[in-house]
Amino acid sequence: MLTDQKNGQTSICSDTASPYETAVGFLPNGSVTTVPGFRAAGVYCGIKRRKKDLALILSDCDCAAAGTFTQNRSKAACVTISQHIIAHSPSCRAILVNSGNANACTATQGMDDALSIRHYCSRKLGISDSQLLISSTGIIGKLLPVGKVLSGIDLCIEALSTDGGTAAAEAIRTTDTKAKFGACTVRLSQSTVTIGAICKGSGMIMPNMATMLAFLTTDACIDKNTLQTALSGAVNLSFNRITVDGETSTNDMVLMLANGKSGVSVTEHTPDYALFCSALQALCIRLAKSIAADGEGATKLITVNVKNAPNQQQADAVGRSIANSLLVKTALYGQDPNWGRIFSALGNSACQVDPQTVTVYLNSIPFVKPMFRVCLEEVQARRILTEPQVTITVDLHQGTSSSTWWTCDLTERYVHLNSSYCT
Amino acid sequence: MLTDQKNGQTSICSDTASPYETAVGFLPNGSVTTVPGFRAAGVYCGIKRRKKDLALILSDCDCAAAGTFTQNRSKAACVTISQHIIAHSPSCRAILVNSGNANACTATQGMDDALSIRHYCSRKLGISDSQLLISSTGIIGKLLPVGKVLSGIDLCIEALSTDGGTAAAEAIRTTDTKAKFGACTVRLSQSTVTIGAICKGSGMIMPNMATMLAFLTTDACIDKNTLQTALSGAVNLSFNRITVDGETSTNDMVLMLANGKSGVSVTEHTPDYALFCSALQALCIRLAKSIAADGEGATKLITVNVKNAPNQQQADAVGRSIANSLLVKTALYGQDPNWGRIFSALGNSACQVDPQTVTVYLNSIPFVKPMFRVCLEEVQARRILTEPQVTITVDLHQGTSSSTWWTCDLTERYVHLNSSYCT
Repeated sequence: MLTDQKNGQTSICSDTASPYETAVGFLPNGSVTTVPGFRAAGVYCGIKRRKKDLALILSDCDCAAAGTFTQNRSKAACVTISQHIIAHSPSCRAILVNSGNANACTATQGMDDALSIRHYCSRKLGISDSQLLISSTGIIGKLLPVGKVLSGIDLCIEALSTDGGTAAAEAIRTTDTKAKFGACTVRLSQSTVTIGAICKGSGMIMPNMATMLAFLTTDACIDKNTLQTALSGAVNLSFNRITVDGETSTNDMVLMLANGKSGVSVTEHTPDYALFCSALQALCIRLAKSIAADGEGATKLITVNVKNAPNQQQADAVGRSIANSLLVKTALYGQDPNWGRIFSALGNSACQVDPQTVTVYLNSIPFVKPMFRVCLEEVQARRILTEPQVTITVDLHQGTSSSTWWTCDLTERYVHLNSSYCT
Repeated sequence: MLTDQKNGQTSICSDTASPYETAVGFLPNGSVTTVPGFRAAGVYCGIKRRKKDLALILSDCDCAAAGTFTQNRSKAACVTISQHIIAHSPSCRAILVNSGNANACTATQGMDDALSIRHYCSRKLGISDSQLLISSTGIIGKLLPVGKVLSGIDLCIEALSTDGGTAAAEAIRTTDTKAKFGACTVRLSQSTVTIGAICKGSGMIMPNMATMLAFLTTDACIDKNTLQTALSGAVNLSFNRITVDGETSTNDMVLMLANGKSGVSVTEHTPDYALFCSALQALCIRLAKSIAADGEGATKLITVNVKNAPNQQQADAVGRSIANSLLVKTALYGQDPNWGRIFSALGNSACQVDPQTVTVYLNSIPFVKPMFRVCLEEVQARRILTEPQVTITVDLHQGTSSSTWWTCDLTERYVHLNSSYCT
């Protein structure tokens, strides 16, 4: 099982540990507030109907901050603002997130609204504007109800608590069927540091875009540039390797705050840094998998492993092509061991490999050997495809590069959810 | 209306003429055998259940031949063989096409089978192997029932007739809901030449790949290289601009035979050549649109026009991104005027244009003006989206390049059709 289900919520902490996670201990029900020095809250302010829609994460001291942002050129106001803060602000204290409205494609009024909201919140918190990161997710092209958000900020500040992380995770949900949060500790040479996280996606907001947001905290003592390098590396191997429908949203954002409370220094090019990165990567992968598994209408989590590619670019191209193939995804939904679709997707990628030299595995069992020799009984292949998690491994036998992607199956429900809602 | 429906078949000849079609006359119920000197047949040989599955097109004299082929690296045997013929054979006489089995991912046995079938057919026709082009469409990874195909070849040769084009169009169908054929004449300086065509796609074969095939004939007197240039140009602006699900099949192929029967010479760099190309392009666009309109599970044909892009590459990138966006396609299915999804798809393309400078039109009516100003009542936008054909025009206001793409909406039926069939 990927996830524990407790009170309709999801802790991303019960997966079987991967080999690189040996120094890493996952904490049941952990979140951003598992890390000492962080408080959080999630409240209802009236953007959505009756569901929590505003979250605040606050550190009680200055933090190093890092972030990665959507590559979509139709950027939401919050993306522009938070990108600027990450680039120029020496320290941060808090993250304010609303769901239900993306404040994207809203031109200058949208930017003015975002700046007003940020200013109101930072003033109330007694911090500077440049210390408050902001994020939004939801419908595109509608103005934020600024008054409601300002009232919500008051409620959030009142509600801040050291166990508010799960409420914050609840408040950033859109059509996610579960709130998503996790935390881990990692033993470094001198002591232990904690990393906490909440995230949302890749459901569709009523009625709109696939957005993925993740917010992480840590008490490691790490400078801003090192934190950014560690975060970018982890995001590249986790959130950048999931796909539900090949759509990059206008609002995607991953932010991380490091408050240094543990007193444990993490500096680049040290064994401790490598351990910290491993832990961060392991946590991000768990979060990313939970997003893919909860993809709109999905019935199963699909892992695509590409092995022994000539280089990284080709490994990634093959993984992306298979994970994005509608025909592979509908076949997996139909529990149909239609291996021809995997080879067609592989043949459509930018990879130069001759398809007839490739071996394909289903959950580590050889399925199609070179020269398209099928070596798994159809009934056995079908049985594997009934499982809620399926791994397709493609061995190119051409080099040493590998790439792992996570996706979900494509169901009628995806189409229904994305065609039947009204703007 | 794009198509006439007669006896459950579709003639692609009743569209309103485009401006470039003025010298071009479309012929009701025309097909490959409308062109003098061509006979064709479509028969049932037992690859599919109870439906015609083998087609033959024969010229009574030598033809110049041209072809364009799938870019998928998992190429079917027929693609390799026909590509070789187009590259090396000075003339061709016939095209043999089976549906129901793609003979793809079948390694050396598949190649041996394809060569045996070709040899049997060419011997029976009294032509050389290198004069017979072959094509297959259908399930991937299964061997062809060679005996059945050989018997079918005998039937086909017996059934050849000068009005067999529509039977051939019938026999190359997979899950196409309609047979697709068309023909046109074009007045050149001295006389008139005829171009005929049949095609299939982009339904999914039971149960498998989206494949598109098209076969064209003409009585123009045109050399092989000129024909190839004309065909490649027309395909690039027609079949290469349609997308149902972003999947390029293992078997896609467009072939054209020119038998010179009209005695009318068409040579490059002449006004006649330009006219011939216009006619060929107009016919290919009609065929391509008929494929997009008949996309698996589709309820509407969607045209995406990109105007005033900085260059051709960016125009194509924007068109492709919008036409392939699952969120745009599900919104159009739901008749939801969700313009944010168009901007998000635009922002995801490789195009460098700032989204807030763009104008979007629905069926030529301004919908969203620069700075995201919505200028069409939602009720009016919804009314437009109820129509069976919708045109989205995106004006980038940045240059002079344009690009047109055709696609269809994404429905639950697409998922159902591609997940519920068994291999």
